[in-house]
Amino acid sequence: MAVYQNQTRCLVAVDCIVFGFDGTRLRILLIKRGFEPEKGNWSLMGGFVQPGESADDAASRILRTLTGLDGVYLEQLHVYSEPNRDPIERTVSIVYFALIDLSRYQRQLSDDYHAEWFDLADMPTLIFDHNDMVAMAREKLKYKAAHHPILFEMLPERFTIPQLQSMFESVYQTTFDKGNFSRKMISTGLLVKQKEKDKLGSKKGAYYYKLDRKNYLKNFLKLQSIVPNAGGLI
Amino acid sequence: MAVYQNQTRCLVAVDCIVFGFDGTRLRILLIKRGFEPEKGNWSLMGGFVQPGESADDAASRILRTLTGLDGVYLEQLHVYSEPNRDPIERTVSIVYFALIDLSRYQRQLSDDYHAEWFDLADMPTLIFDHNDMVAMAREKLKYKAAHHPILFEMLPERFTIPQLQSMFESVYQTTFDKGNFSRKMISTGLLVKQKEKDKLGSKKGAYYYKLDRKNYLKNFLKLQSIVPNAGGLI
Repeated sequence: MAVYQNQTRCLVAVDCIVFGFDGTRLRILLIKRGFEPEKGNWSLMGGFVQPGESADDAASRILRTLTGLDGVYLEQLHVYSEPNRDPIERTVSIVYFALIDLSRYQRQLSDDYHAEWFDLADMPTLIFDHNDMVAMAREKLKYKAAHHPILFEMLPERFTIPQLQSMFESVYQTTFDKGNFSRKMISTGLLVKQKEKDKLGSKKGAYYYKLDRKNYLKNFLKLQSIVPNAGGLI
Repeated sequence: MAVYQNQTRCLVAVDCIVFGFDGTRLRILLIKRGFEPEKGNWSLMGGFVQPGESADDAASRILRTLTGLDGVYLEQLHVYSEPNRDPIERTVSIVYFALIDLSRYQRQLSDDYHAEWFDLADMPTLIFDHNDMVAMAREKLKYKAAHHPILFEMLPERFTIPQLQSMFESVYQTTFDKGNFSRKMISTGLLVKQKEKDKLGSKKGAYYYKLDRKNYLKNFLKLQSIVPNAGGLI
């Protein structure tokens, strides 16, 4: 027992980076922190891990409270553990990122805090090390989306190829050639063309597609050729 | 302050999965646990995060104590946080994996515990959830090594192509065609042929190669064609 008794105990928190795509731009869901220190400043949505729940449980609980959604794509990103990252008391933060279909987003279940979607390109300065967390999550998203079909989590069930291209362009902060992108995307075999067109975006309209979930994993490797230099060593 | 005061504090530990390659097989460094519970049973090398150090600092300290090595390839893998994973007291474990060149491995700096290298194919049952941690690290290693040149961390400065092939084969638990492997590996432009041969492995001998660190990242993408289906969604 002696080995355990002499050790320090820490607060353990979970912080969630919630990404969504509004059809044009990549967005992030932030809250105004409701308690001191830094009360009233912009923050990731987080909370302390409770007795009887794992960090994964805590992240799901926090996300459900914030968005009203269950079964959201949620992935552990990294642990931030610098001794003085929280000025009040040592707190180890386990950071998750989530990808949300904005059309499914409901309002938050609680009124305890004020939540707001921001453009990633124009978001406020956050408390503590939360800006570093967001920067790491963006890199991870770039890297992972080049190897796995996770970005589709942010699209509604029916989407157009111009929407898909906008999403990839906002994640990779670049532009893709329209013809190339469309051709490569269709050649993956991932997309099932629908009969209806979206006529809001242009006069000619753009066909809706759905994701072929049967071919989801098998064909996604073909996508890698679209973004050959996607992100760093994460 | 009230929000902080009512929260639970946890012990925070670091556990290190240390992989090495002995020229033929993939190996893992384990220790006999020196204290209760599970005293005397096989375990990953770990320890509690100390005041004033981050989890990364703690992992480096533990690895240095275990191997005598600094500057080892070390990467955060995952946090294990099930409430009852440690029977004595709630302990959140931040798991790292390390890749070590076995020819640089020195003996441990302390005699506080007994450390031993095991074949990954033939390792003992470990305490708590440590076997799950190793399983996840193996999957991560497969996935990551298909996209980044990290396996070279386990090779000495000079190595032969048969050694390289053995290493890839033991990571992916498969066999590669000798001619194909050699041709693809050389075509990456990553390897610089040396004048000397290793004559221990065969009568004819095999040329030594060194890694061209200038081309390390640029050319590694070409390697992906060697292991096209490497691992799952990690």
